[in-house]
Amino acid sequence: MTVITLTTDFGTKDGFVGTMKGVIWGICPSAHIADISHEIAPQNVLEGAFVLWRAERFFPAGTVHIAVVDPGVGTARRAMAARLGGMFFVGPDNGLFTPLIEEARQAGADTTFIILDNPQYHLPSVSRTFHGRDVFAPVGAHLAAGVPLERLGTPFTDPVLLPMPKPEPMADGYEAQISLVDAFGNLTTNLLWPQVAGHKLLIVIKGRVIDGLSPSYGHNDTGELIALVDSENFLEIAVVNGSAAKELDARVGDRVKVLYKEGD
Amino acid sequence: MTVITLTTDFGTKDGFVGTMKGVIWGICPSAHIADISHEIAPQNVLEGAFVLWRAERFFPAGTVHIAVVDPGVGTARRAMAARLGGMFFVGPDNGLFTPLIEEARQAGADTTFIILDNPQYHLPSVSRTFHGRDVFAPVGAHLAAGVPLERLGTPFTDPVLLPMPKPEPMADGYEAQISLVDAFGNLTTNLLWPQVAGHKLLIVIKGRVIDGLSPSYGHNDTGELIALVDSENFLEIAVVNGSAAKELDARVGDRVKVLYKEGD
Amino acid sequence: MTVITLTTDFGTKDGFVGTMKGVIWGICPSAHIADISHEIAPQNVLEGAFVLWRAERFFPAGTVHIAVVDPGVGTARRAMAARLGGMFFVGPDNGLFTPLIEEARQAGADTTFIILDNPQYHLPSVSRTFHGRDVFAPVGAHLAAGVPLERLGTPFTDPVLLPMPKPEPMADGYEAQISLVDAFGNLTTNLLWPQVAGHKLLIVIKGRVIDGLSPSYGHNDTGELIALVDSENFLEIAVVNGSAAKELDARVGDRVKVLYKEGD
Repeated sequence: MTVITLTTDFGTKDGFVGTMKGVIWGICPSAHIADISHEIAPQNVLEGAFVLWRAERFFPAGTVHIAVVDPGVGTARRAMAARLGGMFFVGPDNGLFTPLIEEARQAGADTTFIILDNPQYHLPSVSRTFHGRDVFAPVGAHLAAGVPLERLGTPFTDPVLLPMPKPEPMADGYEAQISLVDAFGNLTTNLLWPQVAGHKLLIVIKGRVIDGLSPSYGHNDTGELIALVDSENFLEIAVVNGSAAKELDARVGDRVKVLYKEGD
Repeated sequence: MTVITLTTDFGTKDGFVGTMKGVIWGICPSAHIADISHEIAPQNVLEGAFVLWRAERFFPAGTVHIAVVDPGVGTARRAMAARLGGMFFVGPDNGLFTPLIEEARQAGADTTFIILDNPQYHLPSVSRTFHGRDVFAPVGAHLAAGVPLERLGTPFTDPVLLPMPKPEPMADGYEAQISLVDAFGNLTTNLLWPQVAGHKLLIVIKGRVIDGLSPSYGHNDTGELIALVDSENFLEIAVVNGSAAKELDARVGDRVKVLYKEGD
Repeated sequence: MTVITLTTDFGTKDGFVGTMKGVIWGICPSAHIADISHEIAPQNVLEGAFVLWRAERFFPAGTVHIAVVDPGVGTARRAMAARLGGMFFVGPDNGLFTPLIEEARQAGADTTFIILDNPQYHLPSVSRTFHGRDVFAPVGAHLAAGVPLERLGTPFTDPVLLPMPKPEPMADGYEAQISLVDAFGNLTTNLLWPQVAGHKLLIVIKGRVIDGLSPSYGHNDTGELIALVDSENFLEIAVVNGSAAKELDARVGDRVKVLYKEGD
């Protein structure tokens, strides 16, 4: 029983995702398939990278993660598969796996990268516009069914890496960015809590100042603007039982100053 | 092969639900997982309770239903699991299981309630903001994998129950409420049809009067405002091939008078 | 391990789809279930037909496709199951399977049609408004579990067929229609590329003229309006990294002229 995950910008209304599942189960009937997200903003490779990176570590070792946010489909951009530590990844070579590759390299984990140039593991006819169905789903299903990674094509070592926005250190703290707005309107920043632990903090966003961190949403009153540590250890900004995104008119990329309190 | 269901207010764009599936399949690889809904209005415990209650009875005995609408995550609110008759339920102790508990008690079914205070069945590190991933998914997966309910923590007997809106009897009928607006814009009321069976009815909503019940949508013309008995035996108000919610600007909580016709 | 697919206009917020999965797994615990779409526009049988037809061919032989876009639920409209070549279909007899039936007949494939009038394979109590749960899910699950099609009811030979819009030939090309707007805002037409292959083309839509076909999205600049051949061999109109639907204010049914270039 192997698990395959899917992360795309396809939406769910047109049947594209269901079609990929049909292809997968035709090749690997025992696979469990988990949708991570199909609502990545169209062509937003960075957002896809972030959402996949945050979820994948919670899957069992050996899981095959197929990700398709692929504005370059049908061009010369490479199609790739990778083994990073104990996980497999399949998708376009356009930076979608950047944080995973960086993390694996920093951890000294084994990494193998393969260009998907062996058509034996693709559908017999490959379209110019839907490699999710014609290349990535069948390759992922063959991996899940036990085909060795190395059989899928030619090894390579220089996968595309995108510059990931990092918090900038300042004299008295960091200038961070909003990296994700979730369905509740909570604002995840790219600042990891351990980087500022031990300090008392002032968080400044859009002219609003938040004094210190709350232990969780429910420790404050409905409507209050708070900062807290999210489930991935990132600093998060939220409105209790409300939407910080709406209240602050905030979006991905907006700046957040995280300042050490004077006298701290 | 055990079935696990998920009911949350997480939405599907951020990968939170996929993450829970990763945790589940890491513990119980043979589980089938059904999404009941991830579009419960944020923090709307009553809506979550209603949607879960309506769906769960159609699952096979032994199904583990995980529900997470959890504004109090990270506070002192209890986390719980329950066996109600032949079904298992896992989630916050905040009223989310109210109609299920009331129904089980009225039916004289066996009920067992456990506080989830045995960390052995949680993820090793539990965040303050995502117990769906760190507590409820692993507990549900262990249950599905055969761990006895009693091993998960300490028994208790006073789960939180929310007041569920009930129709008010009047001299000549009932004043009911809209309890759910579905994706078609159909308006489900909280009045069970058997309570008024045998009477001819006038249904009054937002100044509009509907004379009697239609056997189904297709017995009337497109655009007609009708009342009928829904698939759960509740009185429902609909616009044929249209949206009653839009036409009447109606929402959950709006009042509906169900009157016995004069001379009836 | 059999695959069942679901295509409906139920949306995903109300738990109706989850309920169908509960019924299915109660009857056929080993089935894999793929959602094709639950966002068919309400009561839009033609759209449901198109989305199902495009996806189903990528599923393994023996898959049971349950489709429910069913404005006539509860009326005298027939409920049906069919075997078309190696695939099974279950749903209302209202035209939802039109392109599949036409294709199977044109291919000379075996076709069998059954009216679902054997209540032994339905839920014990059948509502007037939710045959997806009470009739189609259990029938599909029994098929997946190995019940012969013929046991489900009475054979018939005249399933309802809807007129499917076809491109109209003109002196110098075709007048096609938009048949689907996908989540990216790409516009799929009903003109198959092989019908015009070998010609140089001018594509005219909403007063805009597109000169020739692009090999894929990534061969043009962001924002360019292009035409290309989609993953099903249909002519498609797109805006690179944008939405043609928004830019042209285009929708299903809009006309597209596909003209042979002068001197070609």
